[in-house]
Amino acid sequence: MRREIAEQGAAVTATLDEVRRQAERVRAAMSGRRHILFVARGSSDNAAIYGRYLVETHLGVQASLAAPSVATHYRARLDLSDALVVSVSQSGRTEEIVEVQRWAASLGAATVAVSNDADSPLATESDVALTTQAGTERAVPATKSYTAQLAALAGLAATLDGGDDLWALLDRVPGEVSRLESAEEGVAAAVEALDASEERLVTGRGLVFGTALEVALKLEETCLQPVRGLSYADLRHGPIAVVGPGLTAVVMAAEDGPLLSPIVELAHDLTGRGAQVLAIGGDETLAAASAYHVPGPDLPEAVAPIGLIVPAQLIVESLARRLGLDPDSPRGLSKVTTTDPT
Amino acid sequence: MRREIAEQGAAVTATLDEVRRQAERVRAAMSGRRHILFVARGSSDNAAIYGRYLVETHLGVQASLAAPSVATHYRARLDLSDALVVSVSQSGRTEEIVEVQRWAASLGAATVAVSNDADSPLATESDVALTTQAGTERAVPATKSYTAQLAALAGLAATLDGGDDLWALLDRVPGEVSRLESAEEGVAAAVEALDASEERLVTGRGLVFGTALEVALKLEETCLQPVRGLSYADLRHGPIAVVGPGLTAVVMAAEDGPLLSPIVELAHDLTGRGAQVLAIGGDETLAAASAYHVPGPDLPEAVAPIGLIVPAQLIVESLARRLGLDPDSPRGLSKVTTTDPT
Repeated sequence: MRREIAEQGAAVTATLDEVRRQAERVRAAMSGRRHILFVARGSSDNAAIYGRYLVETHLGVQASLAAPSVATHYRARLDLSDALVVSVSQSGRTEEIVEVQRWAASLGAATVAVSNDADSPLATESDVALTTQAGTERAVPATKSYTAQLAALAGLAATLDGGDDLWALLDRVPGEVSRLESAEEGVAAAVEALDASEERLVTGRGLVFGTALEVALKLEETCLQPVRGLSYADLRHGPIAVVGPGLTAVVMAAEDGPLLSPIVELAHDLTGRGAQVLAIGGDETLAAASAYHVPGPDLPEAVAPIGLIVPAQLIVESLARRLGLDPDSPRGLSKVTTTDPT
Repeated sequence: MRREIAEQGAAVTATLDEVRRQAERVRAAMSGRRHILFVARGSSDNAAIYGRYLVETHLGVQASLAAPSVATHYRARLDLSDALVVSVSQSGRTEEIVEVQRWAASLGAATVAVSNDADSPLATESDVALTTQAGTERAVPATKSYTAQLAALAGLAATLDGGDDLWALLDRVPGEVSRLESAEEGVAAAVEALDASEERLVTGRGLVFGTALEVALKLEETCLQPVRGLSYADLRHGPIAVVGPGLTAVVMAAEDGPLLSPIVELAHDLTGRGAQVLAIGGDETLAAASAYHVPGPDLPEAVAPIGLIVPAQLIVESLARRLGLDPDSPRGLSKVTTTDPT
């Protein structure tokens, strides 16, 4: 896992180059369509959440995440003739996702497959195969394949966008990802704080929400401790009542954007309720509002999630080792995800 | 809370009558539109998840849940000219939801407001106000207003459906809801089991997924204990690795439908990992696969969620009292939800 964390800058660069090569085909697939529907599970689903927010906020195109059982179990006949369906699966072999993509194509959707294997069924059956260039990923917890998915989805949005603004931001990403691969500031203290806490949750909002869910999933599956990933709103609408001493709240944020200020408020509120806040990313006001702080990327919010995951991966990997666990091969997980046992 | 649980059969009947009265206006609002976008937070969001599955599986219309911050913070300009936006808020006064409805209308959407107050801003500013007939709800945890929301959303789907099938199913609902209001079978044992467990999670899938999230939220906010609500798929894709002894998994299911069999498998799997399964609803095979069982409604899956929540409410109310807490007024919650403090 540690070695693969260090390969992410290169994976992002190569993946963005691949998206550029496919730009014409991506634009052709979207032509005349008005909606983007993401199909994914697990870590890929967390990447798709970023894709959804980026598409809505930067392209002004309505986007959503498919409910796979509508296809696989209810076999509903939706009209998808105005939809571009973007399926995301590291292996490209998750049966459920392949089945949903087939279903969508049969209902009129154009299909883009984001996978790490150009020979997978998901890729070969799609209209456009956007192959992430992460290389073989040996550790079970996704790191570089996840970052490459984020890059592919951001590249997809940049391709569908009329201008060059998003591409200009993306050009800054590989350097920041590479820099963060070996950034150690605050990591050891964060690991110690997480290890000492009785309960953990991870929260984030908007473009960073998927990152918060991914960090919660990684902490849970790698460290074998229950960790909740909650949106800012869901946390405010109920569960905040159970926040108190013994809880470490990991708060993820970009260094700018319209949600930074509410996130800083949330950090104050959580602290006021007795929780210990560990901020990853954000700016100096978030750092000041938090007991622990690990710096994130120097990137604007639109592309920040591609770098923001890196310090969290370092924390997860280090925490697993501290707990005497093997971060490369957590108990009870396999590389190709299966929703329904076959 | 207990008294309001007992008022739900009447609330559902009156709400379905109200939807019938608005049928022509609902059909006119949808006319020429191809998508339904739900806007909600908290319990209303859980009701909207049911609405989304019902609309996709029974109407064949693509549906999704809005990400409110796309409107309220990013102020994205989406093209919503082919969308019907259905906003759900008990009070009709949740600022965030009112703001998203205004935003959607300015972008070309037709709007239906499902609220319990015909004079609320959400209702008065909408194209069609579908007012739930729950009467004043005094307890902070939503019970009858939630059930009435489910009924309104099912009535909306039945209205937009060409045939009478869904209305025929809905005619059976009030009787089952009323019957379950005083059904005690299995409740005391379930409360004891939940009280004795170290950890709790609630899971469900498809049409019942929103019910699982609602039960988790109710358990958490009323009993002040952390409870996770997880989709079947999210549970299988990671967190199942942390399932073990000391955990009570509440498994929610309808008595039929394509997801019953996978849910029974899941109950076996959870039991095999040492967890204690409490099934609410389902059939005799689910009961046999579970350590504890509380019967659900005798209703087909499409409308089962409207009844399935009732035994869970009885469990929550009873558990709160057992814990010495006031189920009517949990700590840290208020009746009108606020995402961003003003």
